[in-house]
Amino acid sequence: MCQLLGMNCNVPTDIVFSFTGFATRGGRTDNHNDGWGIAFFEGAGVRHFVDYQAADASPIARLIKQCPIKSKNVIAHIRKATQGQVALENCHPFVREMWGRYWVFAHNGDLKQFAPALDGQFRPVGNTDSELAFCYLLQELRRRFGDAMPALPELSAALRALTTEIAAHGVFNMMLSDGSALFAHCSTQLHYLVRQHPFAEAHLADEDMIVDFSQVTTPQDRVAIIVTAPLTANETWLPFASGELKVFVEGEPVTLYA
Amino acid sequence: MCQLLGMNCNVPTDIVFSFTGFATRGGRTDNHNDGWGIAFFEGAGVRHFVDYQAADASPIARLIKQCPIKSKNVIAHIRKATQGQVALENCHPFVREMWGRYWVFAHNGDLKQFAPALDGQFRPVGNTDSELAFCYLLQELRRRFGDAMPALPELSAALRALTTEIAAHGVFNMMLSDGSALFAHCSTQLHYLVRQHPFAEAHLADEDMIVDFSQVTTPQDRVAIIVTAPLTANETWLPFASGELKVFVEGEPVTLYA
Repeated sequence: MCQLLGMNCNVPTDIVFSFTGFATRGGRTDNHNDGWGIAFFEGAGVRHFVDYQAADASPIARLIKQCPIKSKNVIAHIRKATQGQVALENCHPFVREMWGRYWVFAHNGDLKQFAPALDGQFRPVGNTDSELAFCYLLQELRRRFGDAMPALPELSAALRALTTEIAAHGVFNMMLSDGSALFAHCSTQLHYLVRQHPFAEAHLADEDMIVDFSQVTTPQDRVAIIVTAPLTANETWLPFASGELKVFVEGEPVTLYA
Repeated sequence: MCQLLGMNCNVPTDIVFSFTGFATRGGRTDNHNDGWGIAFFEGAGVRHFVDYQAADASPIARLIKQCPIKSKNVIAHIRKATQGQVALENCHPFVREMWGRYWVFAHNGDLKQFAPALDGQFRPVGNTDSELAFCYLLQELRRRFGDAMPALPELSAALRALTTEIAAHGVFNMMLSDGSALFAHCSTQLHYLVRQHPFAEAHLADEDMIVDFSQVTTPQDRVAIIVTAPLTANETWLPFASGELKVFVEGEPVTLYA
């Protein structure tokens, strides 16, 4: 199995603290050694880093810990291969363009007997169930909404139906973002918290590292962190319910009625 | 205007030497300061790095100079903005998936009155003429060949026709790769050389750097380097003819008859 990390904020924020704890699980405090990846939205663009080395040993992961990249939407993944060999094309997150924007996707879990009919518009490059699910998601969104991106409530309702359909095939914890919202679906394990004023100190669970967020934020900042297993020992992480899709916008979960 | 660098090889090769000279033009020996990018194929996967900082000042460019990434197909670009503001989404190379493989594209030049009809399958995320041309190229290839990727001669003939059509709108020096071949079209300026046994020493023109390739190669290695302006002072670079599309496979230009 793999682990997921997502961040959604109202101002561009660096993910160095959370990524440092998360990447440690890629080889040191846990055995997610079969590659890792991270994608940062910056404006409409995406910085996309993938590697089949363990995150704990990767020079690119080291660079990301040293050079704060500020983003409002980030998705990261450390991989423990279940389907698909250890190869660059099988590292999450995956990126595709649809409706003139980039979509970033990462998955934790394992889908069985999942062989959806693809019409060729979005095709997997590697051989994971995850990339297949991503291609199917995009295809079905485009089939429902055509060439025009729908408003967030309609999009969220469609994603709720599609993630439920895919999750019937196994474990489908996933994160998806188009740079404006972050969608997170939980089958078995996903937690989140929102950091906002008054900010406090946080202690990483996997590393001897402490940040006092009150020193590096303004009172307006709001940051949602979504992760497979809680990253800090002294904060309250809220578990997702099984089967739940949450939509994060501007640093907090939103309730939408289509 | 911008500058292009491509590499096509018969064995995975690192591009540190050529990229070092090339990146120096992004801010030091030349004024291509408006971003840069590089994409490396590794198997079916792609490592894609883009940055809107000048290549000469970018920590990611520094990492690439220090950590040799081996690849059989690489495309790099340094940008001097002509159309589209300085932003991550406007940095080349661009990446899209078609026919279950990634396609990487970079362009040097300027297209005028170029407003092709896009059917929505491939849409630009940024606002450069270059990304628009890339989307149009892919759309037209898919329109001609449907869901099945054609053989190289047919693909090359189609690209020859399409690049000629696009080049009628202005300057269209471009590089395109799917990880198996590298296609390079010249409107105004493009040079190449093939390094093979017996390998010799090469001196960068833009940096005080020398490599003796006979020390780092085997007699079977073959590497084609394609670049806007020659990178070394002591080797013979062959100019492309205006309007010429060359196809590089396994480290050398090939002649194809569809």
